[in-house]
Amino acid sequence: MRGTVLYGPGDVRFEERPAPAIIQSTDAIVRISATCVCGSDLWSYRGISPVAQPTPMGHEYCGIVEEVGSAVTSVKPGQFVIGSFFASDNTCPNCRVGYQTSCRHREFITTAQAPGLRVPLADGTLVATPTVPADDLIPSLLTLSDVMGTGWFAANAANVKPGMTVAVVGDGAVGLLGVLSASQMGAARIIAMSRHAARQKLARDFGATDIVTERGDQGVARIQELTGGIGADAVLECVGTQESMMQAIRSTRPGGSVGYVGVPHGVTLDGEQLFFSHIRLHGGPAPVRRFLPQLIDLVWTGKINPGKVFDLTLPLDQVAEGYRAMDQRRAIKTLLLP
Amino acid sequence: MRGTVLYGPGDVRFEERPAPAIIQSTDAIVRISATCVCGSDLWSYRGISPVAQPTPMGHEYCGIVEEVGSAVTSVKPGQFVIGSFFASDNTCPNCRVGYQTSCRHREFITTAQAPGLRVPLADGTLVATPTVPADDLIPSLLTLSDVMGTGWFAANAANVKPGMTVAVVGDGAVGLLGVLSASQMGAARIIAMSRHAARQKLARDFGATDIVTERGDQGVARIQELTGGIGADAVLECVGTQESMMQAIRSTRPGGSVGYVGVPHGVTLDGEQLFFSHIRLHGGPAPVRRFLPQLIDLVWTGKINPGKVFDLTLPLDQVAEGYRAMDQRRAIKTLLLP
Repeated sequence: MRGTVLYGPGDVRFEERPAPAIIQSTDAIVRISATCVCGSDLWSYRGISPVAQPTPMGHEYCGIVEEVGSAVTSVKPGQFVIGSFFASDNTCPNCRVGYQTSCRHREFITTAQAPGLRVPLADGTLVATPTVPADDLIPSLLTLSDVMGTGWFAANAANVKPGMTVAVVGDGAVGLLGVLSASQMGAARIIAMSRHAARQKLARDFGATDIVTERGDQGVARIQELTGGIGADAVLECVGTQESMMQAIRSTRPGGSVGYVGVPHGVTLDGEQLFFSHIRLHGGPAPVRRFLPQLIDLVWTGKINPGKVFDLTLPLDQVAEGYRAMDQRRAIKTLLLP
Repeated sequence: MRGTVLYGPGDVRFEERPAPAIIQSTDAIVRISATCVCGSDLWSYRGISPVAQPTPMGHEYCGIVEEVGSAVTSVKPGQFVIGSFFASDNTCPNCRVGYQTSCRHREFITTAQAPGLRVPLADGTLVATPTVPADDLIPSLLTLSDVMGTGWFAANAANVKPGMTVAVVGDGAVGLLGVLSASQMGAARIIAMSRHAARQKLARDFGATDIVTERGDQGVARIQELTGGIGADAVLECVGTQESMMQAIRSTRPGGSVGYVGVPHGVTLDGEQLFFSHIRLHGGPAPVRRFLPQLIDLVWTGKINPGKVFDLTLPLDQVAEGYRAMDQRRAIKTLLLP
């Protein structure tokens, strides 16, 4: 079997790898129906998070269960399943309160950009769809493995409620799906921060009511202007840089919330500034497992179509071009089909 | 009239000052029944927050209204009132959502360690008690002006709910009243972090079920041990140093909350560490005005007795000794009577 391996900055190869096999009795083997490139893959692709050695890539996946270990009871061969980018037992104290990405037995999934995948802790990690879906549903179902669940968590962590004014910092796939999530949660006004026409359009399709093209101080000033000098009730931070984090914090009204899901790179927060901002801050690696049943239902019943974030579809063996297109911002997100 | 003025580190004087007078039509003049020294006064007393010039002191107060400006309608001469350490109009968008310490017209109160005080924005700032209270209620009512309201906000910001395990970092008056607040909010277990016998005793009186004497890494380890390796559901940070803040964050379970009310001094938070901690963070200058009606009721009906934090009572003209006793930790909190 071939799989995706990152050798260093800009160097993605699709090469022969060991076929996945059951190692633990709690494992499952999934034949991948679709996988994709994550915005977070670009941190290492760009050398910002260097890789010490050739590293298998991919943590977003859905597909058909091929085989399960002897201890697995909740999924069986032939079922179509979706799982989180972190395997979790879904029974530990952290899982039980809905923080499966802080599971005490979590394992990061790192080999999903391949035709087959070993999923540890299958009972806790995988959720099966009602039946095997039609092909046109697969892109949207795939997003629930990470990007849509992460956008949803951003809105959840930012306490988005009906009638609120919400701002979204970041127009990558997570930010765009944060817009969709805020819309589903009943936000009255959704301000998307983007300077790219295609992303602005998708943001509007997903429910954005306003577009702000300014960034940094000017972006903050524009949000303040749009909210009568008060700030937004909820701000979704979907980038992970110092600038984006400060933009989010400074765009939020006192008592309002920042939900941050962009993995912070070199971000430091000044305690005194945070204190006097009076904002609420919550985020982290999105516990998408918590949201899978609800989001599968929303996709299954046609209420949301998050698969629209994929604007480039490639056969899996062209994965290197998938990375390049996202790195150069020619594509919002690349869907890969084995 | 004499009042309290800080000249520099350790140099508190009680000296002749202009008598307070109505300046704006929204002002009230209050004859102080009791005032006190705040833990935050010690930052400047110790030279950590230097004062550039002789600075009048005091922001906790209650007393009898002597005179009101022509625009004041909600309080009148003869009433006993309590107000927040920040004057607020209580009508602006930030006040309306309960963040009166971020009022758009807020004014910090800085001359309360004196027999008389001008309170700006009297209608928004002051709350009258049902009648003029008996003397023995006055210490508890005074705490609602800041210290009890701040402990209450710490618990509120940490989302304390019935049945929770709560840890409190800081055994100053705010931390001790944070214990009392968590107890009132129904916490099942309250872990007070203190190494001082008198403060430990008061913490237990206020509802602490466990005392932890360790600090830093060892303090975190002890909280983890007491919570089965999970962390507390809610942690109240009532100090404001880097060590106390990190202790609070690292003692909190994923999905749990830190409520922080210690004014941060030199605190910086690493974005990545915060991200992977999965905690919720909220705090700031406590909007005690929001809580005044509820807390007055709790004191008035004898359900809470926060005035027990005063373990030293002095005549106002001995204010310098009041600062000294707190600085040397001979006193938890000094009550001053004109």
